[in-house]
Amino acid sequence: MTKRGRFITLEGGEGVGKSTNVKRVVEWLEARGIEVVCTREPGGTPRAEAIRELLLAPQGDEPLDDDAELLLMFAARAQHLAQVIRPALARGAWVVCDRFTDATFAYQGGGRGIDQNRIAILERFVQHGLEPDLTLLLDMPMAAAQQRLEARLSQHGGERDRFEREHASFFEAVRRAYLARADAAPQRIRVIDASRELDAVAEQIHQILAARVGAWQ
Amino acid sequence: MTKRGRFITLEGGEGVGKSTNVKRVVEWLEARGIEVVCTREPGGTPRAEAIRELLLAPQGDEPLDDDAELLLMFAARAQHLAQVIRPALARGAWVVCDRFTDATFAYQGGGRGIDQNRIAILERFVQHGLEPDLTLLLDMPMAAAQQRLEARLSQHGGERDRFEREHASFFEAVRRAYLARADAAPQRIRVIDASRELDAVAEQIHQILAARVGAWQ
Repeated sequence: MTKRGRFITLEGGEGVGKSTNVKRVVEWLEARGIEVVCTREPGGTPRAEAIRELLLAPQGDEPLDDDAELLLMFAARAQHLAQVIRPALARGAWVVCDRFTDATFAYQGGGRGIDQNRIAILERFVQHGLEPDLTLLLDMPMAAAQQRLEARLSQHGGERDRFEREHASFFEAVRRAYLARADAAPQRIRVIDASRELDAVAEQIHQILAARVGAWQ
Repeated sequence: MTKRGRFITLEGGEGVGKSTNVKRVVEWLEARGIEVVCTREPGGTPRAEAIRELLLAPQGDEPLDDDAELLLMFAARAQHLAQVIRPALARGAWVVCDRFTDATFAYQGGGRGIDQNRIAILERFVQHGLEPDLTLLLDMPMAAAQQRLEARLSQHGGERDRFEREHASFFEAVRRAYLARADAAPQRIRVIDASRELDAVAEQIHQILAARVGAWQ
């Protein structure tokens, strides 16, 4: 029987350097001969990416209801789990995912103020107990993250999406919710100080991976 | 304080004549001086109609996961309730809706085989106890409904959507699930024999409305 693959997620607010560090995690695992499926949420399949478009489209004239936003997130997740994550893990590949359900607790729970128990209902509904084996939470003070986000937008152009347009209090609440999740599950969620130089961040991530992967294999 | 409006839904499979009879219900109510908001599911707002597009798009290469389909239905419903249905009812308008949650129990429950209890979890999650005051279930044998659907498609052109492409066993299961819903809630759900002439169907609908609206007012 094939050994089930491992499921690693990277989490954090806007501008904390998730994309860069997702790549580093994938490269580190692949260098050790591990088959890696690298994906992201919301999205990860064509249908789930179409749902992502609905979620990120700027507000326009019709505000998106909080429950509708939450249900769209989990609809995209159900599709992603069915099409990508579960099949990959089942055949023994490892999955590295840019954001997963911790982001829902942070953004829709912390940011929008949806009761965590209501989010947990949908988490059980869709995941049937599946959760990441390891989550790397990239954390930095909000002001620094906002500076990085603005630098990225001015460098690469592009408009802010519906979440990036939120106010400072929203991002503070997202950060607090992420850190509370990490406090409640310190074994699964490792907090990384992402305000340091990229190399220092990568070094810490490599150390965590080395220890964890060693224990798993 | 404004008296809350009434919420009337029309239900039934493909080809049973829902659109025609929705119009007749609206006309009948408006002729009695009632303000009516006529809407449909999935959809009813621009954002919810965008979700409808995702739900109806033919399968392509990526099958839509059953749970994802169900969550998209309720995401569209949450948006529709927040933007259209609840505000209309609150200001005293009546809402006439082409399909609502009974359709989810029929299509995703009966047709796809999703456990009714799982659907009920999302119903409670999104509706918080709100349900139609009256539901008119247009019922006819499947063969007759399929003939009407084919006649409509050949007359007006257009491709079958993802649901219209399902097989006979799917539609039989949808019909059985609808009738089981009506059996379980005979006071709310009235079954109309939609295989008769349009005028006879309209006459029965008018009688039901007259009796119910008289009792309400």
